[in-house]
Amino acid sequence: MVVVLRPSPDKEKLDSLILWLQSKNISIHQVVGESKVILGLIGDTSKLDIDMLHALDIVEDVKRVKEPYKEANRQFHPEDTVIKVANTQIGGGSLTMMAGPCSVESEEQIVGIAKAVKEAGATILRGGSFKPRTSPYSFQGLGAEGIELLKIARKETGLPIITEIMEISQLPLFDDIDVIQVGTRNMQNFNLLKELGKQKKPIMLKRGMSATYEELLMSAEYIMSEGNENVILCERGIRTFETYTRNTLDLAAIPVLKKLSHFPIIIDPSHATGKSALVGDLAFAAIAAGADGVMVEVHNDPAKAWCDGAQSITPDTFRGIAKRIIALHEFMKTL
Amino acid sequence: MVVVLRPSPDKEKLDSLILWLQSKNISIHQVVGESKVILGLIGDTSKLDIDMLHALDIVEDVKRVKEPYKEANRQFHPEDTVIKVANTQIGGGSLTMMAGPCSVESEEQIVGIAKAVKEAGATILRGGSFKPRTSPYSFQGLGAEGIELLKIARKETGLPIITEIMEISQLPLFDDIDVIQVGTRNMQNFNLLKELGKQKKPIMLKRGMSATYEELLMSAEYIMSEGNENVILCERGIRTFETYTRNTLDLAAIPVLKKLSHFPIIIDPSHATGKSALVGDLAFAAIAAGADGVMVEVHNDPAKAWCDGAQSITPDTFRGIAKRIIALHEFMKTL
Amino acid sequence: MVVVLRPSPDKEKLDSLILWLQSKNISIHQVVGESKVILGLIGDTSKLDIDMLHALDIVEDVKRVKEPYKEANRQFHPEDTVIKVANTQIGGGSLTMMAGPCSVESEEQIVGIAKAVKEAGATILRGGSFKPRTSPYSFQGLGAEGIELLKIARKETGLPIITEIMEISQLPLFDDIDVIQVGTRNMQNFNLLKELGKQKKPIMLKRGMSATYEELLMSAEYIMSEGNENVILCERGIRTFETYTRNTLDLAAIPVLKKLSHFPIIIDPSHATGKSALVGDLAFAAIAAGADGVMVEVHNDPAKAWCDGAQSITPDTFRGIAKRIIALHEFMKTL
Amino acid sequence: MVVVLRPSPDKEKLDSLILWLQSKNISIHQVVGESKVILGLIGDTSKLDIDMLHALDIVEDVKRVKEPYKEANRQFHPEDTVIKVANTQIGGGSLTMMAGPCSVESEEQIVGIAKAVKEAGATILRGGSFKPRTSPYSFQGLGAEGIELLKIARKETGLPIITEIMEISQLPLFDDIDVIQVGTRNMQNFNLLKELGKQKKPIMLKRGMSATYEELLMSAEYIMSEGNENVILCERGIRTFETYTRNTLDLAAIPVLKKLSHFPIIIDPSHATGKSALVGDLAFAAIAAGADGVMVEVHNDPAKAWCDGAQSITPDTFRGIAKRIIALHEFMKTL
Repeated sequence: MVVVLRPSPDKEKLDSLILWLQSKNISIHQVVGESKVILGLIGDTSKLDIDMLHALDIVEDVKRVKEPYKEANRQFHPEDTVIKVANTQIGGGSLTMMAGPCSVESEEQIVGIAKAVKEAGATILRGGSFKPRTSPYSFQGLGAEGIELLKIARKETGLPIITEIMEISQLPLFDDIDVIQVGTRNMQNFNLLKELGKQKKPIMLKRGMSATYEELLMSAEYIMSEGNENVILCERGIRTFETYTRNTLDLAAIPVLKKLSHFPIIIDPSHATGKSALVGDLAFAAIAAGADGVMVEVHNDPAKAWCDGAQSITPDTFRGIAKRIIALHEFMKTL
Repeated sequence: MVVVLRPSPDKEKLDSLILWLQSKNISIHQVVGESKVILGLIGDTSKLDIDMLHALDIVEDVKRVKEPYKEANRQFHPEDTVIKVANTQIGGGSLTMMAGPCSVESEEQIVGIAKAVKEAGATILRGGSFKPRTSPYSFQGLGAEGIELLKIARKETGLPIITEIMEISQLPLFDDIDVIQVGTRNMQNFNLLKELGKQKKPIMLKRGMSATYEELLMSAEYIMSEGNENVILCERGIRTFETYTRNTLDLAAIPVLKKLSHFPIIIDPSHATGKSALVGDLAFAAIAAGADGVMVEVHNDPAKAWCDGAQSITPDTFRGIAKRIIALHEFMKTL
Repeated sequence: MVVVLRPSPDKEKLDSLILWLQSKNISIHQVVGESKVILGLIGDTSKLDIDMLHALDIVEDVKRVKEPYKEANRQFHPEDTVIKVANTQIGGGSLTMMAGPCSVESEEQIVGIAKAVKEAGATILRGGSFKPRTSPYSFQGLGAEGIELLKIARKETGLPIITEIMEISQLPLFDDIDVIQVGTRNMQNFNLLKELGKQKKPIMLKRGMSATYEELLMSAEYIMSEGNENVILCERGIRTFETYTRNTLDLAAIPVLKKLSHFPIIIDPSHATGKSALVGDLAFAAIAAGADGVMVEVHNDPAKAWCDGAQSITPDTFRGIAKRIIALHEFMKTL
Repeated sequence: MVVVLRPSPDKEKLDSLILWLQSKNISIHQVVGESKVILGLIGDTSKLDIDMLHALDIVEDVKRVKEPYKEANRQFHPEDTVIKVANTQIGGGSLTMMAGPCSVESEEQIVGIAKAVKEAGATILRGGSFKPRTSPYSFQGLGAEGIELLKIARKETGLPIITEIMEISQLPLFDDIDVIQVGTRNMQNFNLLKELGKQKKPIMLKRGMSATYEELLMSAEYIMSEGNENVILCERGIRTFETYTRNTLDLAAIPVLKKLSHFPIIIDPSHATGKSALVGDLAFAAIAAGADGVMVEVHNDPAKAWCDGAQSITPDTFRGIAKRIIALHEFMKTL
């Protein structure tokens, strides 16, 4: 950690800061420049509160040198995390295709789609039972019933299932779910993250709409620090000034997060854009950039979808996209 | 609601859409332009899923005309909401000054600050017991113990207290809290909002870091739609590209939210900027723009604060700022 | 265009608005909803000032239905624009690889790099002679001398050249340049755009750092409306809250701009990220998403680059990336 | 400047970097931490290219300690800049009220408004003659004729005038203009800035729509480094995800820019919000936060304005707002 001091710092205050840092087993290296003095802090600075240092009168700026995450850090965990889910795996060179409807609506719907996406090559079935909706008047998902329908679809197809949790009290319902999804609005629901850290189950953590890479990794750290190493990251678009697409898909996240951390990365072009016509091209882009997989919304009849229909594609369209994703993923291995 | 059709829409699909809308008691008004056709939808469109309409092949764009919130809407609720809290009130021309430390640390600390801010003119004591921290290794607050210390400070000073809730299971601990705060990361924790909607207690809802005005009002709608009308809005800075300040304080929120809705508005310049030197000027700006009050972090010794010290000011500094806030608030009434 | 009126509009003002619109040959279609009235405006609304309509007391909102650009609009210009540049073409299924240093520094440097990138498969040589630098103390480019050096490199290699113009008075120096680049900071330098519209030469227009797709297309419209149809669009990253990368590359721009307009699209992953380690993966992603080409910074020795070295890659690295780009571009045709 | 090295840097490369830095008269202070090594660079680092350092394999990050601007820096120029304009001054405790129409349209219009705003207390007349418009089909201003009309209005009222320049070739027309405005889209038109730096005339530099404080100050530095010290900064809203207002007015800019630099600060609430109903409240907020003045669009009949009417207010409304601004400015001196 580097602390930049204000010009001509009060000597007494500086001594007191140095003493306090030393009491935390931090040793200090002073660098006296032409107009500024900086302190290089050596030791375990991860527990120092950077905001507190900022607070001091004599401090102008504080810059972190070491990443604030440990378990999530590629540097201390050089091997890629590979996650077994039923008979498939996420990461490690495998291609993950999560597909399914935004919301589970009925047995007929979810089983129908599950069969269709399986045939097209999907490896995991997605479907929402608890839906975080901006409006209290929108359909909020089937809840527990939706979870049961997902299990039926799994039984019928053999596809493992992923579905979103919205709060701790729902956890018992997720006992038999293969991958638990934490949605963008809950990426910093720290109590939920800690609780999920006590599970063994794979957790797919979606990037918050305005979360930095570091914040996403700190949230993964919350899960890992409680003991659960089965974390998958998902980029699903960030909020920017551009309104033509619902969000802006940030594909640089793929090589960046691969460099900084060791988790598999899944890309969700459906939510990122909110437009089904863009899903294919962005899914291809994700695979070409090195993603471990994609999550795509598929609905048997978009016009009848209860929610988020705009970004859904039909099983037929998905079949075409999936085929190309598979071929591209194979091709990328040869490059 | 206005639906813009793609050029030359398939007649059969269009008829089917119109029939479906009519089945929802929506009547349709077609406007045929030079290159586009639009449908004006008349009736209760609040339950129509705008995303679903987007999904249709024949639809190019959908534009909402009516605001999607009702209870929160000034149009249907023209009177200002005024909230009684112990012997003070929020809104209705009163000046609310919430002040206190980021985190409750000890009885001595919180009682000391409570006395100091009361003397300076604060009307409500703030202090965090459950702290949403980006890092799992940062101090997470005293929890239940902090709540008890806040009550002691209230007893000693008579100041009502506001503190943040992080999840539903903490609710029983908030039984005797005067105002419950929902933090920026929980603005779209819809389950929590619904639960708080079943309380009678005032809820201060902080704007999410990347939430639009409409999303903030929809979250207020979640609370109101369950029966709790005691909602206070708080602008605390939004996330932008500027990194010098922690966030960008959006003071246009004051006149905008006053126009669109009927809630009292509190401004938090401490979290918005992360820099104590900016708090005073932005608090004055907030009052001049018509805010019902401000929330300011005050710490007895910023250098020793356990968290967020950078944005804290001392009781002495607060005294000066508060005095000017009070004078300015009085002056604004005469303008 | 759709005009949403405020509730209970003043009848006299409404009549006056309608008369005024009719005088502009706009016919009006009123749609009376439950709580709002909207006007559907039919006719050539492209000359109506949307802001002026907003200004009226009786108007609550104005929503455009028709895109404000014509020449740039795919709807009125369904064929892809294909641009011949010397013996190569941009668009129409060809792969364009623009490569070269950020700044032209010396004959040895530019000729050396030109030869290396040509051998690796580049189709156009890039190199900056006039450099828009944030600081007045940074190297501002060789100017006219740099242009001459580029021509020498062209002569030596046969590669056509692209370089950036910064103001109208520099135009004579660009007489013999193959493609003129308009940089991100000049995307809305409207006088420059109009002047470039009077040329015949291909213009590559880079998206402004905070420009929407519509604004980018309106700037292309400026060029086309003066008669120059040879426009190439370039996505080079937009400014967001994420600071790990210099900007956020928005690859959804590719399918979106292809749908809305007819121009070739080039992606610049070097400037977008500011990190050479990310260039390859994002270039592959761009090609997979359907881009017509990429622009990559290549320097013979990044450590000695005068500017923007952080995002440069060496000829050796470029060779590997280019080979894979070419293979991927071929492969995408088979998908 | 602080250079953070990657773990286990290549010794030869490190030595070569150190030698190169020393050749630039930079001395180096190494700080060896637990997992990282940092170099503290001492000397005049303003000419070092930060991007170039980033480029080196062995470098992980580079952090600036000293601000990159000198002339604009409060540290080296502690006195407030106060600018005389005719019989008024900008900065130094004076209240500047710039008011007038978005576009100059006719003698009658501009003289009429000039008289009205003068009577209301305006100190400078604003009016656009060269208008940067997103669409080539929108009214682009009267050009040279508008400048003449502004001079007539000045003669009639004695109000000095400010108007926007769009490119260097227009400079001769600005000979007799009191303050030259550089618009948001030209904040980084560096050639224009340099040319304006050679003038003696006051330049009001508007913050770019997505410019950081540092970038704004670097643009001011461009002007000052050529010899013109008469720079005024103007905050006019930044681009964010919120679309209800045209831009987000960032009032923290006032205390921040006052701390970092020495220039007068003007706030433009009209362009920031695009909504005339918000102008008053935000103007008051600006004054309360310490702005040196405001710039407000005033039009004699908003419904007939040729451009930007939505954000204009009538002379009557302006009279009320100006009166309150004046009173508030006086009051703030007593706080």
